[in-house]
Amino acid sequence: MSVFNVELKKVVDDSYDIEMGYRLEDQLVEDLETGLLGKIRKFAVITDSNVLDLYAKPISEKLSKAGFKVELFVFPAGEKSKTRQTKAKIEDAMLEKGFRRDCAVIAIGGGVVTDLAGFLAGTYGRGVPFINYATTLLAAADASVGGKTAVDTPLATNLIGLFNQPRKVYIDIAAWKTLPKRQMASGMAETIKHACLASREMFEFIEENLDDIMSFQKFACEYIAENNCKIKYDVVMKDERESGLREVLNLGHTVGRAIETVSDYRLLHGEALSIGMAAMVLLSARLGYMSEEEAERVTKLYARVGLPTRIPDYIDREALVKKLYTDKKVRDGKLRFVIEKGIGDVVEFAPNVYAKPIEESLAREIIMEL
Amino acid sequence: MSVFNVELKKVVDDSYDIEMGYRLEDQLVEDLETGLLGKIRKFAVITDSNVLDLYAKPISEKLSKAGFKVELFVFPAGEKSKTRQTKAKIEDAMLEKGFRRDCAVIAIGGGVVTDLAGFLAGTYGRGVPFINYATTLLAAADASVGGKTAVDTPLATNLIGLFNQPRKVYIDIAAWKTLPKRQMASGMAETIKHACLASREMFEFIEENLDDIMSFQKFACEYIAENNCKIKYDVVMKDERESGLREVLNLGHTVGRAIETVSDYRLLHGEALSIGMAAMVLLSARLGYMSEEEAERVTKLYARVGLPTRIPDYIDREALVKKLYTDKKVRDGKLRFVIEKGIGDVVEFAPNVYAKPIEESLAREIIMEL
Ligand SMILES: NC(=O)c1ccc[n+]([C@@H]2O[C@H](COP(=O)([O-])OP(=O)(O)OC[C@H]3O[C@@H](n4cnc5c(N)ncnc54)[C@H](O)[C@@H]3O)[C@@H](O)[C@H]2O)c1
Ligand SMILES: NC(=O)c1ccc[n+]([C@@H]2O[C@H](COP(=O)([O-])OP(=O)(O)OC[C@H]3O[C@@H](n4cnc5c(N)ncnc54)[C@H](O)[C@@H]3O)[C@@H](O)[C@H]2O)c1
Repeated sequence: MSVFNVELKKVVDDSYDIEMGYRLEDQLVEDLETGLLGKIRKFAVITDSNVLDLYAKPISEKLSKAGFKVELFVFPAGEKSKTRQTKAKIEDAMLEKGFRRDCAVIAIGGGVVTDLAGFLAGTYGRGVPFINYATTLLAAADASVGGKTAVDTPLATNLIGLFNQPRKVYIDIAAWKTLPKRQMASGMAETIKHACLASREMFEFIEENLDDIMSFQKFACEYIAENNCKIKYDVVMKDERESGLREVLNLGHTVGRAIETVSDYRLLHGEALSIGMAAMVLLSARLGYMSEEEAERVTKLYARVGLPTRIPDYIDREALVKKLYTDKKVRDGKLRFVIEKGIGDVVEFAPNVYAKPIEESLAREIIMEL
Repeated sequence: MSVFNVELKKVVDDSYDIEMGYRLEDQLVEDLETGLLGKIRKFAVITDSNVLDLYAKPISEKLSKAGFKVELFVFPAGEKSKTRQTKAKIEDAMLEKGFRRDCAVIAIGGGVVTDLAGFLAGTYGRGVPFINYATTLLAAADASVGGKTAVDTPLATNLIGLFNQPRKVYIDIAAWKTLPKRQMASGMAETIKHACLASREMFEFIEENLDDIMSFQKFACEYIAENNCKIKYDVVMKDERESGLREVLNLGHTVGRAIETVSDYRLLHGEALSIGMAAMVLLSARLGYMSEEEAERVTKLYARVGLPTRIPDYIDREALVKKLYTDKKVRDGKLRFVIEKGIGDVVEFAPNVYAKPIEESLAREIIMEL
């Protein structure tokens, strides 16, 4: 009978600033006072049980003092909380406190908090603005750039969520000092991955200044904060909807993700990634894209951070091989790996294609060796 | 220390077609075969228990025959199913069936199905495409244009959701024939509201052809399908993010929504709206924006459809007055109403301002009279 065309073409500007520095609480308050979020004066501060006293309460108090209406919403720390149920609980608590569409969300914490809060903000009242105040190196290195938000479900991690850009990201480098050592090391795993895929210079900086980073020397932390952002941003900008290039960020994750799952999350993501990177450089060397020497240099740097670079004995290696097939890069039933080219670059196999089909037998060989 | 600007300005094209007609199953299959959704060949058909046998199964079978992979996901019919739990259940079932990011959602049903399925599609794998196949007049008149999707929570209706545009909408007018009479009448409530706010001609068409509409005469149903779309589209287009003009669609809803809630959903949305429209024209007449005669003409048309135009006795009128304050148009604690200007227009009180603050005493007066 008849067709009606709904015209919906428009320019969308989701640009935002990432501010890096030492203690940015006052900066946050000032930004809100000077109109970062327009006339919004009502904030839901979302955080976890570890970050609550350390950062979320002090920041909320400053906001209250500045005359904003602030409520704190806290969930138990840990990946296990990154669920639809936690999201629903906080939504209900916000509704109960009278939050409607005229509010904004401030996420204070690591990647679990920013992933969950960013997703929640995106669906609360069909979308309210949100701000990330990142307190972990992992959130600084990875979770804060790219606009991905999500929760986990029993059958999949990070599959239910949104692309949703924050209005501003604060990366508080001072907060790294209170991080458990294991978490700091885990964050370094993604940092070194960034260097491996895009910047030999950054890799060499980390080699030379690792002790300064791990003891929180300002110049060293600033350097990695800035370069992490720059590298992830360059990739994400060029491929916002994950069509090809963005797969390079998956370097080391084929085996990494699988180990993380097979370990039943005994290993932190960064620890599993570290082993995944060891597997990847081994494979890259085997395929002739990297010298054995360079491959070893990568593995050594991971080891110096205190990260594992071999598959723990309690892992069932056959189960691990099977698990590889749940990787999101799998296509037509074939495993696909991102491959490193020397240190600081990855292989582009065809225009905008960065993952290479790998025979299961070769993947198994690597896994059995490691 | 340093600020990094993330540049994210881009052109987004969410345009789509609304196709109206008698039985559009074959059209849908053909569209998918000719690339409406590119290379996607895997569909999650979401529907409710009433629509399953009538439309969803036959359509799914046609899709299967055409070689697509199709799975049906069914929930119990009714507004009570429009929840985060239903969404989560379907997500889990889809994950279990191996649905990943390379699929699309096809919603087949009324507004409950399209609201829920559109929201689900928007967060599944951070967004997969979806299509609406609307089988109720209400979905045709209202739910299918505008991109609003949502679920209800114990404390609020439609507050958790997304703006998410379908890739195409099919309005199957033939499906209205199987609708329960009460549902058809309820859909007419929004239809007459559209006429009241934007088109005197449409209002007069309905007056003249009401019997033909209610007995599903093709010309009459086509006329209202087209004009519903046109009117809602004109408004939504000019104000996609609900900044001002879009409030005109809220005509009659201040009292309508409140009655719907106070009746504890004994009244259907359209039935409650019908009473709300009666209250609104009374108020518009009282304020001098409408003659008493025209106000009566509106109320009469609602009555002819078989819709209630007075507040039922079981409603606590004082509770109703209180409930008015939960309306989303309330600002600074003041009630605000959209007001009709004659038949076919609304009052613009200031540039882009379509709601007028109304004293509680006046609102109470109207409610006590009705
Ligand atoms: N959105 C993305 O693009 C993206 C990218 C990478 C990772 N992620 C997600 O990020 C999460 C992991 O991030 P994470 O490692 O920051 O996890 P996290 O938020 O769980 O933080 C790790 C631990 O450190 C604690 N903590 C946080 N800041 C602290 C501080 N300053 N001092 C002391 N303790 C502190 C937390 O309470 C938690 O126990 C995962 O859920 C992952 O899926 C998302
Ligand atoms: N997104 C929007 O902009 C928007 C606008 C208006 C309303 N809505 C929402 O729409 C919902 C109401 O829509 P609705 O009235 O279509 O509700 P509905 O989907 O519940 O349909 C009404 C009833 O009719 C049945 N049904 C549907 N099609 C049928 C057919 N062809 N034959 C026989 N039975 C059929 C359904 O199973 C249900 O029992 C509400 O949840 C409301 O919030 C959304």
